[in-house]
Amino acid sequence: MRLPHVGLDDPRISKVQIGLIGTPWDGGTTNRPGPRHGPRQLRDASTMIRAQNGATGVRPFELVNCADLGDVGPNPASVDDSLDRMTAFYDEIVAAGIVPLSAGGDHLCSLPILRSLAKTKPLGMIHFDSHTDLFNSYFGGMQYTHGTPFRRAVEEGLLDPARVVQIGIRGTAYDFEDRDFAKSVGIRVIPIEEFHERGAEDVMAEAREIAGDGETYVSYDIDFVDPAFAPGTGTPEVGGPNSYQSIQVARMLDGVNIVGADLVEVSPPFDQSGGTAFLGVSIMFEMLCNMALAVTKREN
Amino acid sequence: MRLPHVGLDDPRISKVQIGLIGTPWDGGTTNRPGPRHGPRQLRDASTMIRAQNGATGVRPFELVNCADLGDVGPNPASVDDSLDRMTAFYDEIVAAGIVPLSAGGDHLCSLPILRSLAKTKPLGMIHFDSHTDLFNSYFGGMQYTHGTPFRRAVEEGLLDPARVVQIGIRGTAYDFEDRDFAKSVGIRVIPIEEFHERGAEDVMAEAREIAGDGETYVSYDIDFVDPAFAPGTGTPEVGGPNSYQSIQVARMLDGVNIVGADLVEVSPPFDQSGGTAFLGVSIMFEMLCNMALAVTKREN
Amino acid sequence: MRLPHVGLDDPRISKVQIGLIGTPWDGGTTNRPGPRHGPRQLRDASTMIRAQNGATGVRPFELVNCADLGDVGPNPASVDDSLDRMTAFYDEIVAAGIVPLSAGGDHLCSLPILRSLAKTKPLGMIHFDSHTDLFNSYFGGMQYTHGTPFRRAVEEGLLDPARVVQIGIRGTAYDFEDRDFAKSVGIRVIPIEEFHERGAEDVMAEAREIAGDGETYVSYDIDFVDPAFAPGTGTPEVGGPNSYQSIQVARMLDGVNIVGADLVEVSPPFDQSGGTAFLGVSIMFEMLCNMALAVTKREN
Amino acid sequence: MRLPHVGLDDPRISKVQIGLIGTPWDGGTTNRPGPRHGPRQLRDASTMIRAQNGATGVRPFELVNCADLGDVGPNPASVDDSLDRMTAFYDEIVAAGIVPLSAGGDHLCSLPILRSLAKTKPLGMIHFDSHTDLFNSYFGGMQYTHGTPFRRAVEEGLLDPARVVQIGIRGTAYDFEDRDFAKSVGIRVIPIEEFHERGAEDVMAEAREIAGDGETYVSYDIDFVDPAFAPGTGTPEVGGPNSYQSIQVARMLDGVNIVGADLVEVSPPFDQSGGTAFLGVSIMFEMLCNMALAVTKREN
Amino acid sequence: MRLPHVGLDDPRISKVQIGLIGTPWDGGTTNRPGPRHGPRQLRDASTMIRAQNGATGVRPFELVNCADLGDVGPNPASVDDSLDRMTAFYDEIVAAGIVPLSAGGDHLCSLPILRSLAKTKPLGMIHFDSHTDLFNSYFGGMQYTHGTPFRRAVEEGLLDPARVVQIGIRGTAYDFEDRDFAKSVGIRVIPIEEFHERGAEDVMAEAREIAGDGETYVSYDIDFVDPAFAPGTGTPEVGGPNSYQSIQVARMLDGVNIVGADLVEVSPPFDQSGGTAFLGVSIMFEMLCNMALAVTKREN
Amino acid sequence: MRLPHVGLDDPRISKVQIGLIGTPWDGGTTNRPGPRHGPRQLRDASTMIRAQNGATGVRPFELVNCADLGDVGPNPASVDDSLDRMTAFYDEIVAAGIVPLSAGGDHLCSLPILRSLAKTKPLGMIHFDSHTDLFNSYFGGMQYTHGTPFRRAVEEGLLDPARVVQIGIRGTAYDFEDRDFAKSVGIRVIPIEEFHERGAEDVMAEAREIAGDGETYVSYDIDFVDPAFAPGTGTPEVGGPNSYQSIQVARMLDGVNIVGADLVEVSPPFDQSGGTAFLGVSIMFEMLCNMALAVTKREN
Repeated sequence: MRLPHVGLDDPRISKVQIGLIGTPWDGGTTNRPGPRHGPRQLRDASTMIRAQNGATGVRPFELVNCADLGDVGPNPASVDDSLDRMTAFYDEIVAAGIVPLSAGGDHLCSLPILRSLAKTKPLGMIHFDSHTDLFNSYFGGMQYTHGTPFRRAVEEGLLDPARVVQIGIRGTAYDFEDRDFAKSVGIRVIPIEEFHERGAEDVMAEAREIAGDGETYVSYDIDFVDPAFAPGTGTPEVGGPNSYQSIQVARMLDGVNIVGADLVEVSPPFDQSGGTAFLGVSIMFEMLCNMALAVTKREN
Repeated sequence: MRLPHVGLDDPRISKVQIGLIGTPWDGGTTNRPGPRHGPRQLRDASTMIRAQNGATGVRPFELVNCADLGDVGPNPASVDDSLDRMTAFYDEIVAAGIVPLSAGGDHLCSLPILRSLAKTKPLGMIHFDSHTDLFNSYFGGMQYTHGTPFRRAVEEGLLDPARVVQIGIRGTAYDFEDRDFAKSVGIRVIPIEEFHERGAEDVMAEAREIAGDGETYVSYDIDFVDPAFAPGTGTPEVGGPNSYQSIQVARMLDGVNIVGADLVEVSPPFDQSGGTAFLGVSIMFEMLCNMALAVTKREN
Repeated sequence: MRLPHVGLDDPRISKVQIGLIGTPWDGGTTNRPGPRHGPRQLRDASTMIRAQNGATGVRPFELVNCADLGDVGPNPASVDDSLDRMTAFYDEIVAAGIVPLSAGGDHLCSLPILRSLAKTKPLGMIHFDSHTDLFNSYFGGMQYTHGTPFRRAVEEGLLDPARVVQIGIRGTAYDFEDRDFAKSVGIRVIPIEEFHERGAEDVMAEAREIAGDGETYVSYDIDFVDPAFAPGTGTPEVGGPNSYQSIQVARMLDGVNIVGADLVEVSPPFDQSGGTAFLGVSIMFEMLCNMALAVTKREN
Repeated sequence: MRLPHVGLDDPRISKVQIGLIGTPWDGGTTNRPGPRHGPRQLRDASTMIRAQNGATGVRPFELVNCADLGDVGPNPASVDDSLDRMTAFYDEIVAAGIVPLSAGGDHLCSLPILRSLAKTKPLGMIHFDSHTDLFNSYFGGMQYTHGTPFRRAVEEGLLDPARVVQIGIRGTAYDFEDRDFAKSVGIRVIPIEEFHERGAEDVMAEAREIAGDGETYVSYDIDFVDPAFAPGTGTPEVGGPNSYQSIQVARMLDGVNIVGADLVEVSPPFDQSGGTAFLGVSIMFEMLCNMALAVTKREN
Repeated sequence: MRLPHVGLDDPRISKVQIGLIGTPWDGGTTNRPGPRHGPRQLRDASTMIRAQNGATGVRPFELVNCADLGDVGPNPASVDDSLDRMTAFYDEIVAAGIVPLSAGGDHLCSLPILRSLAKTKPLGMIHFDSHTDLFNSYFGGMQYTHGTPFRRAVEEGLLDPARVVQIGIRGTAYDFEDRDFAKSVGIRVIPIEEFHERGAEDVMAEAREIAGDGETYVSYDIDFVDPAFAPGTGTPEVGGPNSYQSIQVARMLDGVNIVGADLVEVSPPFDQSGGTAFLGVSIMFEMLCNMALAVTKREN
Repeated sequence: MRLPHVGLDDPRISKVQIGLIGTPWDGGTTNRPGPRHGPRQLRDASTMIRAQNGATGVRPFELVNCADLGDVGPNPASVDDSLDRMTAFYDEIVAAGIVPLSAGGDHLCSLPILRSLAKTKPLGMIHFDSHTDLFNSYFGGMQYTHGTPFRRAVEEGLLDPARVVQIGIRGTAYDFEDRDFAKSVGIRVIPIEEFHERGAEDVMAEAREIAGDGETYVSYDIDFVDPAFAPGTGTPEVGGPNSYQSIQVARMLDGVNIVGADLVEVSPPFDQSGGTAFLGVSIMFEMLCNMALAVTKREN
């Protein structure tokens, strides 16, 4: 979004209120594919974003100080070490009082971010996705994959299940182990059928109510959107919301006490036209506007 | 869908209740293009389908015995011989008491299937398409093309027009000869404008009523769907339903007495990303769930 | 649309009532990219349009005499000269009593057309777009770009602002200078949020009322449509109408006293599949049907 | 190539010396795929061809009168009738003394052309292809396919086998029935291995010697070219010549007594970028230059 | 290649002489990208391969018994366990006296195969690639990646460096640590510049000499080929051989005592057209022909 | 190439010896298409370039101080002003003693660069291209287009024609006005036919001789390369060099006294895969290595 780049050791860091961060990590080993290249494509697309929200008139860059904090560097040799590095990076950001808006990367990136943000108490979460990412493990043992981050986050006490809502869940399933878990801990799952039936406005009213006034994280998986509008992702599920609804739900986060947000799973190889990334940054801009409003509100 | 492959001469054939069959035929002579490669792309995409319907919870492979019966072999040298070969193949399937779910191929494939299924009495049909496929002939004389199968089927007494409904019809037309024919024999045509106005739920309620309790065939042309969601087809028409509605209508076939179904006109060259095929198998999975319910109901 | 080609010096020109014209101009200097190639791709796609409107039954080519008047030739060396050449071309068309339906080209093409059509009095306009194209200038001084044509048209008295409506406006903005101008002169701007909320039918009823009975121009920028349905354009904005709504609004121009129309900004390099062009000609066909009705009405 | 369009009943036909003809036929029944759309894409691409051969300086349009004779209309309902219609069309052209340069369509199109051109005596042929197209039949009985035209042509006495050379043959094979036939009748087959070893210049010297001074047809299947340079075709074979060699061999037809030529098997769906078609018209332009030289030589 | 599928527990396994095996593993965690889907795309493409080598006339399926042994199943949760599972699978194959031709998967797949084949004594290797894959580690510690397999193989005594040749090496480099290692152990590296200068024939004569009469493995990384001919791979390097040379080098393995071979790094997301896979199976077919000759020779 | 970004007002500028500059200008008015986006795509691709030349072993970043000087900002409203701005920018670079390596942008960008570099005396030039760019004007009057820069440069005395060589010229032509001009002033034109016949080595020996020891500019139009290897450009011409030769000619600039170089006409919309840009930066890296050697030599 043509923001100034401010490193963590830059003196200007103390003035930053909202920081944009790239998390180019997908845990893979091949060279070109995958969400690890998402941040670069999103940065490219973000140059098309202008200063003013066409719908609400909000001018976030005038409301608060925003900066591009660069990319966090994972260690492709080790999942554990990567998680630790990312948490260390976000710890500094949190210490500096900066609200992070992150661009993934795969969905596992949300876990180390939550570890930093929820150090002192569990957060609420509004989660847009076609998958719950609440599975216990994959392939008989993998504890840390892009299908498990929020299971870990609940287990580690980073999320308050009663204040978590997941919107857009769909697709065929191996089983309902993830949904059973959601039910058992009190996470509200709104499947896509309910979303289409009730409409975005009604669903988001409920989401805001679930999140309440407490500190809340927003996690947006681009595969929430129908693949006709966002083909550039690794595990698309048909039958999702259109591009207008995708933006609308982000716009309807107004009033939520956002302490961090991310947009993940943009995978350039599957949409070389950049259309998915452009939709992604359009959604990020809506989240940013609401984050700016939240920051302003908290500071007043 | 990772089903066991069971040939017609395999002893296990007697246990099969629903058989998936590929009809890789489009009557053409060139090597690569066209729906003849649809079955292969659909099989590929079907490996992404898991065991449980995320919306309804149905687990079809546990309800009934399903098998992949392989591909039927047309004779590219002769339309007439190809039709005969396909009917012969389906005759065996019908004789074995198997309910066929076929993956085309072009829409002419539905005719030889109906010839097998409707040997003793005409069937009802719920037909999703942007075209009626009710024309008398093409190019001054072609009686057997992908624009004429249901005209032939009505003439041959394979369909009971009073129990036939066609949903999604649209596009510019040479003339209304096909619709005039529909009207004259009593086929109900629901154009896309009516579909969008009334909504999927209302339209499908009428469709189920038209089909009634009698034996019913379901034919789903992928060009029913808007080309933004299903570009991989040969005669796309803009203005169709989105991917959610495309799946919704298949899900709303519950209670219909289905004796056979097909999904046709998936044409790989026009969507090399495989997105159309993935939507296609998602639709087939919904049909399969309802076929499994119908089989279970008939057997109880 | 397989129409006869009639040059301006062809004696048959006197019989033509509606003329299709290509305006292959985008003011650029490179060889392949851009809307300048739009007319060719639209002509190609138009061969798939048949004689009868599938929804309304109108057969425009039987109602009025239509002809393809070919392409107008701009001067790539000079914006001013190009504008003059185009106006000269359209002056002849207007003198011959022909109603022009133009295929762009970029949106600046609308300006010289309006200069011909509004010689004696200002016109009303129904304008579909994601941008207002009402900016004063670009890059510190460019008066004639695809972002400014209607500012010029209002200043030159070619449009009656009270009878102008702009539908579908969206996207982030540098500022609201364009919308402030709209407000100051009385142009009605219907942003996409209002469009989605009220629906096409309600919005178009208001549009027809704003246009009233007076002579009205229709300008349709393909980027009005969501980029998932029309990716082949240079400045896409996410969150637009789907293909059905895109056609619907053109169909709902019935009763409007159309004296000219255009479809602009189809840019082949961004959709080599031709899908955008096919949607474009489908929209043009709907406009043509309503133009034919308007011509018939005026002549009776 | 921006040539004037001259119909067979146009008085200007008597002046035409070389006629460009489209043969949009691939014997298929589906709507969009295949070589039947080759002529349209080739016409589009031909607008990028300018008047002068950059390498040889020849200006063919000044040497002889060239015209675009339009497309010949096949009957998709019948292979036999299509062959007859095409022969009838070319009979008129031959009667008018016009040398035809045809753009396919599939390779079967060459047969009806040869039937017109070789009415009085068999022709020599220089044939660029990765396949011999000399098979007896396909799928147990099809006598007329794009794999058999030259078998038929030899059997019908349209070609003098001793003056036929086939260049570029490659790929895996069912068997060598075609090559055995070639050997038995005396057709010279130059496989791609020999082509790469000897080089274009040496091979073409032999080809010109085989053709001799007698009347010779040139048939150029675009799949002669390696698919990296010409992906837009239905039966590509890897390991072919590059684009430079593809043009070079056509340029080295100088001195050959060409009485007709074609370029076939350009299939737009497999190369929507138009690159294959652009290479195709570049090759056609080289053939045209040599045809113009041959016409000039014969007339002097 | 339309071969019968024979499982390891199938009694027919004892008759198999050459087995085709898929190794769908790329060590990644995301769902769609990468070489793990290579085997599927290669199997698809292999249906276009016919029984006879067009250049040499060899009919491998008549010389020896070939079968498709299916895919080996890695454990995505663990690199170490995956390597062990693959070695266990190949141990059975080796025990059955079957010569394996494997389709990757990434290049790390070669390591567990070598562990099975070189159990008793080190092998020679002819290796086509743009990278040496001889690095010690990646990212400060990863011992097992697709850039290190042959370093490990040398260290483990699976390869006899004096009988190893690497052909086609190119691209910019971090440093020459890999080449220094090659030099230190006596591996012959033929960079692409030398390949282009000397030509395929001369280089392959040297390669055959280096391999000698001893048991030799052939490893073919598709990125050996120039990306214009094989774009479907993860780490392409420009300046490679063309498709003809790519096939030629495989054909020139005649006389080599091949005991196993693989083709790796075909990555479907980067070439959805399937062209890379088609080139890949064409290369595999040439290797298969030479493997069949080697098997025949050993058995006589 | 992961170089530090150094602005013109940065104190570190005094240490820079070679500066990389983007010239994102194509004189067009539409938003997305064209070479104006070339610099961004080239920067993206350059992250894949590593520190060492794999063929020559040169490590340019250790030989000289390199920096990314950012993009020069044109004025899209005026060709004349854009040329002036660019010259002003390069004047500062020249004053700082920096050797510029520029990434276009269209070919007109070379003119303002030459105006800075050749202030005191005319330069020699080695020019790789499929077009001479020596035309006098386009469309009856345009003096400054991407087809005319070197005509202007010769007229303005920026180039010494006797020390200019153009390599790779090909394609059909309107006329030979450009080549006649070349001949009249003594520019050496090496058409592609001669290049293919003599080979890269021989041609480059002559080129180095023509340039001699004097100060020389190198201008590399990506359309020099065959479009199968570099499809991402606006005016491709078939029959060009392959990727290996494209790199080879840049590598063979060793010993040339290079005072500036550019790579132009990379147009992202025509190759969204980024393959063209990757080839482009590979060529730039070879030029950079030779520029570093030239700088070192001049300073010693």
